[in-house]
This record gives sequence, structure tokens and C-alpha cells, in this order.
Amino acid sequence: MEIRPELNPDSKLPIYRQLGEYLQNLIESGSLRPGERLPPTRELAGHLGLNRTTISAAYEMLESGGLIYGEVGRGSFVRPAPGRAPETVNWSYALAQSPTPSAAASSRANLINFSSSRPSERQFPIDQFRACCREVLDGPEMRSLMQLGSPAGYEPLRQYLLQRSSVARETDDILITNGCQQAVDLLRRALIKPGTKVAVEEPVYPGLKNLFVEAGAELLGIEVGPDGADLYSLRVALEAGAKLVVLTPSFQNPTGATIPDAARRQIIAMTRAAGAVLIENDIYSELIYSGTPGERLKSLYPNVILLGSFSKIAFPGIRCGWIIAPKPVIARVTEFKQLADLHTDQLSQAFLLRFAELGELAAHQKRMVAAGREKVRAVADAARQHLEGCTYSIPNGGMNLWVDLGDGLDAAALRGLAQRAGIDYMPGRQFSIARPLDSGLRLSFVGLEVDEISRGIEILGSVVREARTSRVGDMALTGWV
Amino acid sequence: MEIRPELNPDSKLPIYRQLGEYLQNLIESGSLRPGERLPPTRELAGHLGLNRTTISAAYEMLESGGLIYGEVGRGSFVRPAPGRAPETVNWSYALAQSPTPSAAASSRANLINFSSSRPSERQFPIDQFRACCREVLDGPEMRSLMQLGSPAGYEPLRQYLLQRSSVARETDDILITNGCQQAVDLLRRALIKPGTKVAVEEPVYPGLKNLFVEAGAELLGIEVGPDGADLYSLRVALEAGAKLVVLTPSFQNPTGATIPDAARRQIIAMTRAAGAVLIENDIYSELIYSGTPGERLKSLYPNVILLGSFSKIAFPGIRCGWIIAPKPVIARVTEFKQLADLHTDQLSQAFLLRFAELGELAAHQKRMVAAGREKVRAVADAARQHLEGCTYSIPNGGMNLWVDLGDGLDAAALRGLAQRAGIDYMPGRQFSIARPLDSGLRLSFVGLEVDEISRGIEILGSVVREARTSRVGDMALTGWV
Repeated sequence: MEIRPELNPDSKLPIYRQLGEYLQNLIESGSLRPGERLPPTRELAGHLGLNRTTISAAYEMLESGGLIYGEVGRGSFVRPAPGRAPETVNWSYALAQSPTPSAAASSRANLINFSSSRPSERQFPIDQFRACCREVLDGPEMRSLMQLGSPAGYEPLRQYLLQRSSVARETDDILITNGCQQAVDLLRRALIKPGTKVAVEEPVYPGLKNLFVEAGAELLGIEVGPDGADLYSLRVALEAGAKLVVLTPSFQNPTGATIPDAARRQIIAMTRAAGAVLIENDIYSELIYSGTPGERLKSLYPNVILLGSFSKIAFPGIRCGWIIAPKPVIARVTEFKQLADLHTDQLSQAFLLRFAELGELAAHQKRMVAAGREKVRAVADAARQHLEGCTYSIPNGGMNLWVDLGDGLDAAALRGLAQRAGIDYMPGRQFSIARPLDSGLRLSFVGLEVDEISRGIEILGSVVREARTSRVGDMALTGWV
Repeated sequence: MEIRPELNPDSKLPIYRQLGEYLQNLIESGSLRPGERLPPTRELAGHLGLNRTTISAAYEMLESGGLIYGEVGRGSFVRPAPGRAPETVNWSYALAQSPTPSAAASSRANLINFSSSRPSERQFPIDQFRACCREVLDGPEMRSLMQLGSPAGYEPLRQYLLQRSSVARETDDILITNGCQQAVDLLRRALIKPGTKVAVEEPVYPGLKNLFVEAGAELLGIEVGPDGADLYSLRVALEAGAKLVVLTPSFQNPTGATIPDAARRQIIAMTRAAGAVLIENDIYSELIYSGTPGERLKSLYPNVILLGSFSKIAFPGIRCGWIIAPKPVIARVTEFKQLADLHTDQLSQAFLLRFAELGELAAHQKRMVAAGREKVRAVADAARQHLEGCTYSIPNGGMNLWVDLGDGLDAAALRGLAQRAGIDYMPGRQFSIARPLDSGLRLSFVGLEVDEISRGIEILGSVVREARTSRVGDMALTGWV
């Protein structure tokens, strides 16, 4: 298949988008077939007389649209689409649509990687955790931990977490899950039918959005500003019939924003009046670097469903989260838990319990908060120095900073260039429901060291400045690299 | 609410069923309200002049129909139903129907418990496993195991399992899951739309059935006889439009039946001709006590999707299973895995890999097979001695024996009586799709010791004999206890 686009340098549409749309037509018309390899960027650039970065930006656009995929070291390939495949079993016909379009993260070595919202493994207190594991291994419960367990979770951990929680009441119960992601999966299985209207923050964590999309829910985006979820936007969603509202009141992912206490009370009043169910994603709130902790929605209203997890405050590789909610809710989601995977790994539950009981979790958290405070200071300093013309709001806790590049810049198109300059981030489009968010991006800074943060934001600043001066849309024509 | 049933001793309907249907009417009409406590069996028995076992059998019937639930030491209560509830949030309205009706297992101490298909924890090689865990804890990978991992699973375990598998090909890939239950959950997310026709064995493991029911699939039962899935029944299902077929060719749960090799080849030919996708549940095949191992369906046809797990051959408390399938399938289910819970616990994956690599898994399996051989011999001896008039077929491997009590006996109604006599089992109705299977039951014998098996089957025999001689339908009137 020869590639001969007609590109118009005078068009308002940037060259990379013109090329992207041309290739998209070739794929959708079947001229480029599933599995077919696209020409290497260098080759196509030479062939068309364009800069290689233009080709990369066009491919990036197709990849984020789910039309092509990259294989490390092999190039870019056309994705299979329903209705055409060569095998005896037509897998692309048999398989459901991909639930997670376009989240491919490049993980080149030496990249300052802002793309994953996770703790720094350099801070893991390995020795203390090892000691806790050894105690469990040598303990008398080992045999029963290896045997089939309860779908609700390891009983001593359940009791510990209920007691540790300042908001759980007599009327509540708890379910242990494989991290917060599974908690949301189980809740949507218990609460959502196709067509149910669900209000979530926008920008939203894609793992949350995609679960509800899979369930056939109708998503309504609640706009998030520097003060978190916008109340007017929530009202619109409730009036449109939202039956379920999912909020992260403290240090939301991806914005880092926190809802003020007064607004929290209004949120409770509004959702109660509307008869909607409210899920409070509370996984970041203990990572607080400044200010006072917000009141938990769950403490304001007992019927709130609270999500917690060890993934952010301890170790994400050990999958353990929980749901605290009124007993009828826990009874039902526990049935779905049993259906999903019988129960959460028991050894890990026992390890984490020991780690918490011995005070090691609290000590680790203290160190994480101290380090986080320095990291967020580095973020603020570097942003002030290098991100002029961008909009952002420094968070008081959590793991993420949201940056709006402004000027109609497209963070997805810039990403390939940023990677070549030495950093990676998540483009805003990944977090969108209905709003484009093209000029936004998420910097997850907690997994990095202070000097990496400073250097990374400096690199981002220079990428943005260059893009702005050379007008990103025309970058190919101006020879910008 | 006063309970005044009109019971007719001359009816062909047993007294306990008459009482059960009367109570069902009271619940469905709202005369007995959600949360209301039913009278204790002793009290109601005195009040109605019936034997207590009749009341128990009626309650059992309501419980297995999902209308009431028991709380240990507190009695039986009416379940909430959609449309009526007293709270601000009407949870029974907000929550989806229960995905797992009526599986309540009583676990009284001193009960010989045949009700759970799991290995014996007394055989767990604790010391060897501890040593493997310690090696991992002290190893250099600890830090990265605690960090967020890959949705596909821990890479060294994936490679090990692919190489260990005699049926994986170049065109295959592997996904690590939280046991086989999650493997099925992810596959049905990738393969099933509401209304998709899915053929499964009948009797079927309820955890499998309920997943497909949740997804809105239309289930078609393939009858299982002593030679496993019936080919004619499979043909009928394929002609009816089954797009997915799930089979356990070796030592099926609950029947213990195995499909002969010739039939396996026919199954492949039939499903290929029909263009249906075939899932081979292979979690029991390595527990083989006699005869030669069957050919894996996957070895006969590369497009088969194979499920494996450590739960039956090692420790079910450590949740780890896998799917081996053609690459496009694994690529898609891996996306659903990420959506479901990001990835499987990494420490446990590393522990099990070490356990396998060092030969400890093979040694443990050898001991399990040797013990299983003795256990199945005990099953055969005791069944021959005590289960006259019942139909059963001694399995060559696995964990389960299926017994048909015959004579129109209802294993669910007998269960309460069997528990009082000292044993527990799973009634056949739990494994049904369209056929009643009321006279069937599953004895999971591998978790028990040889002497418990012998004694338990003897007790079952005496319960069945007494029920038969006193005609179970009339048991209340004949004063049978």
C-alpha cells in the first residue's frame, strides 16, 4: 500500500493531523489491513519530505484512537477490527471491544517517568516488611492461610481495618478486595445496569471510567476545578438522573484537587435529596502534605460507600484494598467478590495486617508524607520557574499535578516529543469523558526523586516553550525537532 | 403474623413442601415482611403439631429459593426484596439481584464436611513452602515485587508456566489470574454479550454458571454421564446456536466424570464445525489416581482456551491461576484483567514459582496423588457397602463423587437431617441449569481423611435408608427424626 497523502500547509489543520486523518481513512476503508505494518517514521518522513516528529505525532494520534498499536522494536501495526480476520476462529469477531483504548505507556530507560500514579519503591521499608512476613510465615495460622478462605476477607484484617477507620459505624461492614480497582469493579456489578446514569469527576481516572463504560453505564462528567468537583456540574448530573456518584474528595487523580468541607456538606445534601448512591474514593487522603484533612463524606452521611487501599500508602504490588459500607451493600458485593475470584490472597492480607499492627505502616506513612512534602515543594518551584503560560494548581497531598498547557497545544501529540526529550506523562485526553482535555496532562510526581522532578519539569517547560514558539501545528514545516 | 397453613396429609405433595409453599405465599404477598424473623422450628413444630424435621425441610426449601436466610444462633429471616425497604437509601432497590442464590454452607464443628471441593490442608508441605517464601523475601527482587506490576502477571512465572505446559504453542500466550474463577470471569467479559448462547456441562459448578448468568448469557446444559459431557447433548446445544462451550474433560466438578479420548476428538470436530469457541477447564487433570491421562483438547486443537490453577494441585488460599490461549485472546483478556484489579498479587506469584522451580510442587503433587488413590478406594469401598440403591460412578481422579439417591429423594431436603447426623454435602440442585437434579448430591472427598470418608459415607447411607423406609415426603407424619 503506497502512502501518498495530499497535505496542505495553508490549512488550519496541522500537518500531523492531516496525515493522521489520511491514514485513518486508509485503515477504515481496508486499504491498510489489520496486522499490516506501517512504514517506519524515518522512512515515511523521507518519502514525504516531512520531519520525523510530524510522522510520530500522526502515529501517536492513530494509536490513541485505537487504530494502530506499537510493538517495541518492531514498529506500528494496524489493529484488528470486527468483521475481518484470517483465522479459523475469527478472534476479532469473537472478542468484545477493547475495554481500555489507548493507554500504551512507553517505558524507555532513563526516562523521567511522570506517567504512573504510584509510590516510590525506593522508599519501601523492605527490611521491616520482610520481618512482618517472616512472623506470619512462622506463625500458627500458616496452614489455614493456605487453605480456601472467606470471600469477605481475612477476618483479623477486616476487624483491624474497621477499628482503624474513624468513620465506620455499627451499621457498616467491610469487604477486602484486590486493591481499589476491584472494589469499583464489584460495586458497579452490584449497582449498575446498562443505561444507569453514573456521575464521575472529569478529568477522571481511566480505570474508573472504563469499568463503567464496560457495564454500559451512561457517564456524566462532573467538572473538576482547583476546588475539586464543581457543585453546579454535580447538580446538572443529578437532575439528568445520575443514580450513582463517584467522587475522590481529597487529592483527586488526575487533578490533585481537594473539595472544601463546606462543599462536601452540600454534596451530601444534594445526593441525598436526589436519592443517589455516593461512593467516596478515599485512597489518597492520608497522603496529606499541608493544610487540614477534609471531613470524610462517609462521616457526614452513613450511607456513603467508602473505598480504601494499601496501594498508595504502602505497596501496590501487594493487591489489597477494601470497601466500608452499610451491611446490605457489603453482603451483596461480597457475593460478587466470590463470583469474581473467590477471595483475596490470604498470605498478603496477613502480611499487611502484621505490618500495620506493629506500627510499621504508620511509620512508613510518616516518612512518605515527609518526602511528599519535599516533592510537592520541588513541583511548585519547578513549575513556577519553567511552566510559564501553563495553568496548574499545586496539590496539598496525593500523587498528581494537573497541568493545562493552554494555547491549543495537544498534550498527546507532544508526548512523543517529550519522550525523546527525556520525560513521560499521561496526556489529558486519557482522562476525558465528553470534554476534550487535549491541552491537559497529568504529572504523577510521587514515584520520582526531588531532583528528577525538578529536571523533568524543566524539560517539560522547554518542550512546551519550543512547541509554542514554533507553533506545534506547523512543526513539520518549520523543521522543529 | 400468625402461621396457619392448611396441610393435607393425603396430598401427593409432601407436608414440608406444602408448608414451604404456604410460607412462600406469605413472603411474596408481603404478609411476612423483609427482615422479619420466622418462628424457631421447635416452636412452629409444637404449634402445628408437626415434627421439627418437617419444619426444617420447609425452611431449607425457602432458603435454597433465596426467600429467607439463616443467621447462626439467631434464626431464620425473610430476605429483602426489590421495591420495599425502610432506609433513606433503599439498598434492596439500588442493589442488583444476588448473583449467587442459596449456597449457604453450614460449618458446624465435628461435621464430616463433604461440601467443599478443595485439597486437604493437613497435607500442605508447610515447611517446604515456608522455605520458598523466605528465599523470595531475601531475594533481590523484593522491591520490584512490592511495586505495581504487569497486568499479564509476574514475567518469570509466565515463562515457567508456558514452558511447563505440554500444550502451549508458539501462537499462544498466558495471563496470570487470581485462580481459575477469575479466569472465567475475564473470559466471559471478553467473549459474552447479553443473549450469547453458552453451553456448559450439567450438573455444573455453580461459580461457573452464576458468572454467565450475571453476564446475561443464555445457558444451554450439556448432560454429563459417567463418560462426561454427552455428545448428542453438545450437538443439540451447538445446533441451538451455542457460541461458547466450556468443558472440564477430566474429573469434572461435580460429577468426577472424564471424557474418553475418542469423544474428545469428536468434540473438537463438532465445535470447530460450528465455529464455537471452546474453553477447557484443566484444573483437576493432574490429580489422576488410575488409568491414563486424557488428551488435552488444547493439544488436539490450538484455538482451545486452556485454564489452569495452583488451587487444586497446591494451595487455594494463595489465589493463582492462568489462561493459555492464542495471542489475540490473551491480549484482550489482559486488558480486562487490568480493568478488574490491575494485576495478581506479585509476592504470591513469586512464592509459587519458587515452590514449583525447586521441585516442591511436583513432590507435593505426587503425595497428593498417592493419598487421593487411597481416598478414592475408601470412597469405593464405603459406597459399595452403604449406598445400595444409589447410582454413582467412582472417578479416576479429582476431588468429587456424584451420587444419585434415586427414589424421588430430595437431597436438599435431606441435607438438614444429614447435618444433624454428622455430615454435610452439596445438594444436586445447586449444580442445575434446567434439569432438577434434586435427587443428586456431590461428595467432595479429597479434603477429608480416609477414616472420615468411610464414616461419612456410612452415615449418608443410614440417612438415605431411613428416609427411604419412612418415605421422606411423609416423614413428619410418621414421626421420623
